[in-house]
Amino acid sequence: MKAAIIGGGVIGGGWAARFLLNGWDVALFDPDPEAERKMAEVLANARRSLPALYDKALPREGRLTHAGTLAEAVAGADWVQESVPERLELKHKVLAEVAATAPSASIVGSSTSGFKPSELTAEGANCIVAHPFNPVYLLPLVELVGEAEMCARAAGLLRRIGMFPLTLRKEIDAHIADRFLEAVWREALWLVKDGIATTEEIDEAIRMGFGLRWAQMGLFETYRIAGGEAGMRHFLAQFGPALKWPWTKLMDVPDFTPELVDLIAGQSDAQSGHLGIRDLERRRDDNLVSLLRALKREGQGAGTVLADHEAALAPAAGPPVTSDLPVTVDRLVPQTWTDYNGHMNEVHYLEAGSQATDRFMELIGADAAYIAGGQSYFTIENHLRYLDELHAGDRLTVTTQMIEGRGRKLRLFHRMWRGEALAATMESMLLHVDLGTRRSSEPGPVVAEGLARYAAHLEMDLPEGAGRGIGQRG
Amino acid sequence: MKAAIIGGGVIGGGWAARFLLNGWDVALFDPDPEAERKMAEVLANARRSLPALYDKALPREGRLTHAGTLAEAVAGADWVQESVPERLELKHKVLAEVAATAPSASIVGSSTSGFKPSELTAEGANCIVAHPFNPVYLLPLVELVGEAEMCARAAGLLRRIGMFPLTLRKEIDAHIADRFLEAVWREALWLVKDGIATTEEIDEAIRMGFGLRWAQMGLFETYRIAGGEAGMRHFLAQFGPALKWPWTKLMDVPDFTPELVDLIAGQSDAQSGHLGIRDLERRRDDNLVSLLRALKREGQGAGTVLADHEAALAPAAGPPVTSDLPVTVDRLVPQTWTDYNGHMNEVHYLEAGSQATDRFMELIGADAAYIAGGQSYFTIENHLRYLDELHAGDRLTVTTQMIEGRGRKLRLFHRMWRGEALAATMESMLLHVDLGTRRSSEPGPVVAEGLARYAAHLEMDLPEGAGRGIGQRG
Repeated sequence: MKAAIIGGGVIGGGWAARFLLNGWDVALFDPDPEAERKMAEVLANARRSLPALYDKALPREGRLTHAGTLAEAVAGADWVQESVPERLELKHKVLAEVAATAPSASIVGSSTSGFKPSELTAEGANCIVAHPFNPVYLLPLVELVGEAEMCARAAGLLRRIGMFPLTLRKEIDAHIADRFLEAVWREALWLVKDGIATTEEIDEAIRMGFGLRWAQMGLFETYRIAGGEAGMRHFLAQFGPALKWPWTKLMDVPDFTPELVDLIAGQSDAQSGHLGIRDLERRRDDNLVSLLRALKREGQGAGTVLADHEAALAPAAGPPVTSDLPVTVDRLVPQTWTDYNGHMNEVHYLEAGSQATDRFMELIGADAAYIAGGQSYFTIENHLRYLDELHAGDRLTVTTQMIEGRGRKLRLFHRMWRGEALAATMESMLLHVDLGTRRSSEPGPVVAEGLARYAAHLEMDLPEGAGRGIGQRG
Repeated sequence: MKAAIIGGGVIGGGWAARFLLNGWDVALFDPDPEAERKMAEVLANARRSLPALYDKALPREGRLTHAGTLAEAVAGADWVQESVPERLELKHKVLAEVAATAPSASIVGSSTSGFKPSELTAEGANCIVAHPFNPVYLLPLVELVGEAEMCARAAGLLRRIGMFPLTLRKEIDAHIADRFLEAVWREALWLVKDGIATTEEIDEAIRMGFGLRWAQMGLFETYRIAGGEAGMRHFLAQFGPALKWPWTKLMDVPDFTPELVDLIAGQSDAQSGHLGIRDLERRRDDNLVSLLRALKREGQGAGTVLADHEAALAPAAGPPVTSDLPVTVDRLVPQTWTDYNGHMNEVHYLEAGSQATDRFMELIGADAAYIAGGQSYFTIENHLRYLDELHAGDRLTVTTQMIEGRGRKLRLFHRMWRGEALAATMESMLLHVDLGTRRSSEPGPVVAEGLARYAAHLEMDLPEGAGRGIGQRG
């Protein structure tokens, strides 16, 4: 698949990175002489953070080219994304050129935050609004507005690159999310202008309270809870009248004077000026990765998008380091797995080993359905040998050998590889259990057959290090 | 310390739970005959989630009493918190009674979201606004408004119960955060009324995008990044003019008609009606615990409040199960540590063991300052034996025996206890390393002395299970 990105700023660059890391080829057109440098910076951030969301490897990265002309960029593109500055006449010009040169079947999306599809297509170009949120390579939301059939095709492709398409029922200025951002922005300007709070205090008022609520449930579900047993109707009865209170008196727009600009810029410098923009970006991205992984574990909100995308990724199938053994994990080491010693923390070696055990269980038929049926394996012992350091961004591959697998007992030997270097081994003893009685039991026929499929593993040499205690040698 | 809670609804109950779980005694006064049941439900939620934020035990829970009169509740209270319904004449009546009966030195806070301190104190009562956010037992933010000296004392006490006091510079209707909530609410009503989006679509527009940004950086720092290298001033130059665009045309207040109420309540039922309010609360709380723990690991936003609070908690000192060994972990098992088998996942046994190793390192002087000086210990082997299941909410205590501790090698044997039952053991072999060369090295004198302080451990019997490989017996 190929995406053409017209305009390589923060948004266009974010789109390009999202497509590339999901295996699409990308052609970028941006006449800015700095475009290559800017794109490289966004891509570096994305490579550092996007793969860290997943416990599987993403597809092999696509190829990035910098096109000399718009026509060259859009040639053969399945998706053309326009992210040029927010001036309608410029958008019209670019979209007309796209219409004249892109394949007729390609999706043409505009990143506009302000214009409606009817405005964009007023001069005949065929396109939809596909409005993403910064950083595009991490945040799932894309607002789709416009012609239904193109929106539907776009939604399907967006899901395949891990995004969440939200298709609007009607077009409206600023779509949905930016209307909220605009409302909050207006209110924030008043608070700063009137000396009620500084920019830093406003940020704290958001991130120490309702920002945490909105990261996982949004507005209405949160308020439904506030209504208690009586639900939304009760909440509305309580809170509705507030709309007539004097709180609403500041619905006017503050004058955007040079003094107000100075006030805000000065406070923002005091708050964050000690950090460079790249520091802030990395901090934001690390936080987002950590929050998104937390939601993935909970199976909630944006975490469901991640989980669905991860499930659709090909299973672990990285470079088979030891040719006869199944590859049970193939992933990158996320930043969140490192510790004060500057390397992957000891806990996450066991996490990777545990993922390998889960995958091997799937391979022998002890999968989610089997567990839902009331049977599973419990680990009763683990022995880890840490042989080499791993760092954030390292590709980690695990191969698994079954060294005991008859009756209730299952003993696995995981080798954890950083490229061709053996970084750790983990020996795991598991017992097959009945989840009702919590006692050991014989595996069901499906799993007994699954174990038999790997019987050849038992004939292999016992791996170096297996069966040993700590401090015991050969 | 004692807190008197006047009004035991969702907010008052949340305050009571926050105080109780931080070791305060609480007297609750609420004439509602259902008050005890409601309080018990809020407390059950809080007990399930608040301790899960921390990797240390909270203080012993305080004593909850249901007072028959307001005067009985406030007797001897260090803090009186008023959380009665939002009617000014009712607040005046309650605050006058508090003034007449509470100790003169006590802090008197009002949970009001709408009234200013000048309104609350108009009839002579001395109090401040202390406005929290639901769920009070999890979200750190408290807006303080009013008399400076009482606000300062209140801020100090709030930090000790893990909250984030934000003191306003001037009083204003709805303080800070609720102004934003009100602005967004108004906009959301328009979107639903005009058929642009349903309540569910609006929630997705928030939690799939900017909600994630606001959970960790708020508004201004996020936009500073959007401004790129040129910073806030550049962002303002780009975005400022949007304030004059037609986006702002909907600053009017929609009519709150029965039809609009029906529309919203119906959409909310379709979105969340299949879940009971308790399910939604638990889901919200699990998500918040998971997000807050993620931010604690990143050391950002609300995570810094947690980390500071945790650092101020007494070190692990739970019931010493084995009297001669140091208790190196004393904590509850969080919900986020459990897995598809319904018990604590194998990975988190190692996490608890790793915390015990970190604590033992502190005890022998290999603490954060020592590590910052370029020396540390790396784990080279771990052997875990899983002897019993642990579940969310279980209290987990770890004792640590040093079974080898001379020169570069440090071998620890952690026993993990659920009450008096041995749930797991973990034997860890560590090597002292120079963080510059990443090679093993002799410990510095501070740590050598620290090791010597535990020399008696080496004379004890080798623990059952130590030194053994997987599957090896006695």
